[in-house]
Amino acid sequence: MLDIKHNINNLRSWMEEKNIDALIIPHQDEYLSEYLPPQNERLHWATGFTGSAGIAIVGKDKASIFVDGRYTVQVQEQVDKDIFEILHITDNPYMDWIKDNFSKDSKIGYDPKLNTPVWLDYASKKLENYNLTSLDENPIDLLWNNRPSSKVDKALLLSENYTGESSESKRNKIAEKIKSSGNDCAFISKLDSIMWLLNIRGNDIPCNPVLLCSGIIHSDSSFDLYIDLNKIPMGLDSHVGENVRIHDLDTFNDIKNKDENKKIMFDNNSSNLWSYNIFKLAGYETIKSQDPCSLPKACKNDVEINGMKDCHVRDGVAVSKFLYWIDQQVASDNLIDEEELASKLDSLRSEQDLFKGLSFGTISAAGSNAAMCHYSHKNSKIPGKLEMGSIYLVDSGGQYLDGTTDITRTVAIGDVSDEIKRSFTLVLKGHISLGSVIFPKGTSGHQLDSLARQYLWEYGLDYDHGTGHGVGHFLNVHEGPQGVGKGGSNVPLENGMVISNEPGYYLENQYGIRCENLVFVKKHENKNRGSFFEFEDLTMAPFDKRLFDRDLLTDSDIIWINNYHEKVYNSVSKDLDNQEEIDWLKQATSPIH
Amino acid sequence: MLDIKHNINNLRSWMEEKNIDALIIPHQDEYLSEYLPPQNERLHWATGFTGSAGIAIVGKDKASIFVDGRYTVQVQEQVDKDIFEILHITDNPYMDWIKDNFSKDSKIGYDPKLNTPVWLDYASKKLENYNLTSLDENPIDLLWNNRPSSKVDKALLLSENYTGESSESKRNKIAEKIKSSGNDCAFISKLDSIMWLLNIRGNDIPCNPVLLCSGIIHSDSSFDLYIDLNKIPMGLDSHVGENVRIHDLDTFNDIKNKDENKKIMFDNNSSNLWSYNIFKLAGYETIKSQDPCSLPKACKNDVEINGMKDCHVRDGVAVSKFLYWIDQQVASDNLIDEEELASKLDSLRSEQDLFKGLSFGTISAAGSNAAMCHYSHKNSKIPGKLEMGSIYLVDSGGQYLDGTTDITRTVAIGDVSDEIKRSFTLVLKGHISLGSVIFPKGTSGHQLDSLARQYLWEYGLDYDHGTGHGVGHFLNVHEGPQGVGKGGSNVPLENGMVISNEPGYYLENQYGIRCENLVFVKKHENKNRGSFFEFEDLTMAPFDKRLFDRDLLTDSDIIWINNYHEKVYNSVSKDLDNQEEIDWLKQATSPIH
Repeated sequence: MLDIKHNINNLRSWMEEKNIDALIIPHQDEYLSEYLPPQNERLHWATGFTGSAGIAIVGKDKASIFVDGRYTVQVQEQVDKDIFEILHITDNPYMDWIKDNFSKDSKIGYDPKLNTPVWLDYASKKLENYNLTSLDENPIDLLWNNRPSSKVDKALLLSENYTGESSESKRNKIAEKIKSSGNDCAFISKLDSIMWLLNIRGNDIPCNPVLLCSGIIHSDSSFDLYIDLNKIPMGLDSHVGENVRIHDLDTFNDIKNKDENKKIMFDNNSSNLWSYNIFKLAGYETIKSQDPCSLPKACKNDVEINGMKDCHVRDGVAVSKFLYWIDQQVASDNLIDEEELASKLDSLRSEQDLFKGLSFGTISAAGSNAAMCHYSHKNSKIPGKLEMGSIYLVDSGGQYLDGTTDITRTVAIGDVSDEIKRSFTLVLKGHISLGSVIFPKGTSGHQLDSLARQYLWEYGLDYDHGTGHGVGHFLNVHEGPQGVGKGGSNVPLENGMVISNEPGYYLENQYGIRCENLVFVKKHENKNRGSFFEFEDLTMAPFDKRLFDRDLLTDSDIIWINNYHEKVYNSVSKDLDNQEEIDWLKQATSPIH
Repeated sequence: MLDIKHNINNLRSWMEEKNIDALIIPHQDEYLSEYLPPQNERLHWATGFTGSAGIAIVGKDKASIFVDGRYTVQVQEQVDKDIFEILHITDNPYMDWIKDNFSKDSKIGYDPKLNTPVWLDYASKKLENYNLTSLDENPIDLLWNNRPSSKVDKALLLSENYTGESSESKRNKIAEKIKSSGNDCAFISKLDSIMWLLNIRGNDIPCNPVLLCSGIIHSDSSFDLYIDLNKIPMGLDSHVGENVRIHDLDTFNDIKNKDENKKIMFDNNSSNLWSYNIFKLAGYETIKSQDPCSLPKACKNDVEINGMKDCHVRDGVAVSKFLYWIDQQVASDNLIDEEELASKLDSLRSEQDLFKGLSFGTISAAGSNAAMCHYSHKNSKIPGKLEMGSIYLVDSGGQYLDGTTDITRTVAIGDVSDEIKRSFTLVLKGHISLGSVIFPKGTSGHQLDSLARQYLWEYGLDYDHGTGHGVGHFLNVHEGPQGVGKGGSNVPLENGMVISNEPGYYLENQYGIRCENLVFVKKHENKNRGSFFEFEDLTMAPFDKRLFDRDLLTDSDIIWINNYHEKVYNSVSKDLDNQEEIDWLKQATSPIH
């Protein structure tokens, strides 16, 4: 068991010794990725908070933790208010709190591995009268007893049957980009970028099939990989082709002893300050750039798209079986809880071929719990139960050798009110409108976002999250650079990009609705001269017709629904086990009029 | 008559004397506004080109002119190819042309009055090995014989009955903004901002009812106006209230002899380098800022909106009479030309109450001429004529004491093809979709743009211009900061903003279509908690039902059209002169089923 009081006392003794007045403890680790391995959950060690975002400031006699709207309830349950003041990160920016609680010239310690150059620029301006101090070592790493050990599973070598392109070919293309931009090399710190580039996968982080590592790709297509050598399997050499040099993770620091005098592309937003400083000390000229793998990784090739299609059929089988099973339980008055529901779905998914794990923790939310966008029953003392006359929201996904899935369905539990039907149908209409748009080359997700919201807007309703995120191929379920949203990305959507289409609606303390399919971008054939794209659905599972408000659906909505459901039936039914499931799917996907 | 050869020879002698290797001659004048008074048409003096955008580079033995896609035909007709190489400004950026045609260290002269600090930053990077030289005087001003004289009409004092707010009140609000941003004053160089702030109008520039002047507003609400003193009418003092100091335009230069040591807000994008340098020399600290009048000017108050509504009814009377007249002419086989059509419309508009002039030169385009977005029959050797079986596009607007109008209608001349009807209907559906959207506070035009394009996109069609621009109140027909477009503004739409809603479609060498109304943003009342807006149409004139493809219209499209047409009939018919016109409007606005 965590002893937060003990941990904080130890931290404060260390701060006393080092003469540090305040310590900044962000959630992120040195890889700045969305999911952390357990050994890097430093914020949890210091506060007890298990959310996926947040930051703590620990002073000698006061401390606070800052979280966003998703975690305001959870943080109250998990964090000891005798030790921490609990604050909302937007209403009370933590840098303002530092200014209010520490006198000028106070020494504010931060770990350069856990922060970016962009963060330091910002912090230096906001805290200009403070002594912002880069720490040589992270005190939590020194003080953490029984810290979980790192995984040392070997890398998985993903064959070209799945990736569609050799690592050598990918490296050649990235090297061309480096050359054409007048640089010598690029630092690659995003774990999914390295996995994509080398056609490998790993098991170091829950849900993200990546290995903890970093690398440098050079303009001659060679690659320096820094990684725990225990993770290197037999055959990596021949798998990745020539010119991949493998170094122990700990030797990354030695770079600074060379005088390279080269231009290195460096992403100030996604790579940490510690590596930035190492390159600076080694005499590199760092050139602010986006990760050059990001865009080509996002544009899936035909083999990857085919893999995505295949795994979505298997995933659709699991989800359809699950939806059938729910209906059976409800019919026999068995109003099960969120935990059991999630376990059932996870287990159905795990039975599918090529399954490698979940792509994120299943969100299984009954009744009013679904009104919290990022609800997790695991953070609830007692998981909620299905209730008659309400709706159940399930957002889940799997990792398969041939792709990644992410689907949300909202399910009627008994008869639901007309208001719920209306809300659901407005969300579904937005889903259909975005899903069926045809758009010219150059269009970004930011331009398309309003298509998904327009019907809710008509009723003065909206949802407070993005409409779509990029999805990796047997990689991270959230990837850039594209996205659909109000504050969304201006990166044009391109052939082969996969995004989620997930409008929703949430009525506080009452219910939550989300309709989510993954789609991919493909060329739209037309007789005119322009270059146009459209989306094709990857996700294959029925939308709950019991939630439709028929009066709100136009003829073209109905054509879309019937076509989509026909595709679902044709692809999924053949892999169902028994006639009951097939019959259920038949009626769940039968045409509406 | 212009003698370009003579002018260029004189320019080159001057350059020889001053040791200038190349001279940059942009279209814009020292006010950097969209429309120029004749005495500032320096590009025309040097090249003969009359377009609204372009730039010339004159060297000792070569010269070139760069224009955009709108002017590629016109420039060929107007500019002597023996003197100028004619180039497309995007395909051949003029700075690249300088690099290709002048050796390093060449002295490149520019007039700091005609360029912004942002331009100089860019030019200094692009031409880093050149000797970019700020000129103390513009050689064209020295050499221009018979230069048109500046207008010296007195300022018009616009009463609070039209403006809805006193200048003092506006100045107090801007002063608050200056104070709250920690500055001492703001330089206001946009002419429409000064007009708005002082509740005055002028006659110095065609179509824009502004005076050539500039000003500084201070945090104590006082204002220093720099203007030709001949333009100051009796009663200005009491009109603008206390603390407006009036200086002769020529004394602006004297500012640099004071050591002000103040923080001045300065818009590096819209104010010129010459004034920037004056403030620098005077010891001001220039703070990069947007013009603080821009946003409040864009958000019209109730009095301004009521004025806009009123003038749009009168404008609608003129346009409706014009549309009736066209039908009469066509019915009597009188296929008149674009010049006569434009004159007729301009004259009908000029008969309306409170009319003060056109808000831009009428675009009157028959048949294939309308396929050129910014066609002007004045630049054509022979104006086009109406043709049976084609469409006529007319984009026009007026300045009235109580507001500004801008409307485009596309008119069937005889029976048109199904293809034209389909294209028109797709454009109209986009117009309706944008015009009827309800959207939450915080939404920008960039987010709404795809609503206007979606139906064209469905057919692989699109248009290569923005969908909407801001419009002033008895001020410039184009104003920021809001806008609707692909590259559009991210400024949220706010209560009282006026924008155009003008999707179009252009098929090269065949036809052009545009449906344009002005709309204003108002609160949308709903029972939910969110703060939502909607648009209300200002423009009152029928869309040509003969161009509708009924099969493409949904029930909600038809409701929109019938409601709009009913409003048009009710507001416009009572001011028509005779029964024939009323009958015509009755059928033009009768409901469709």
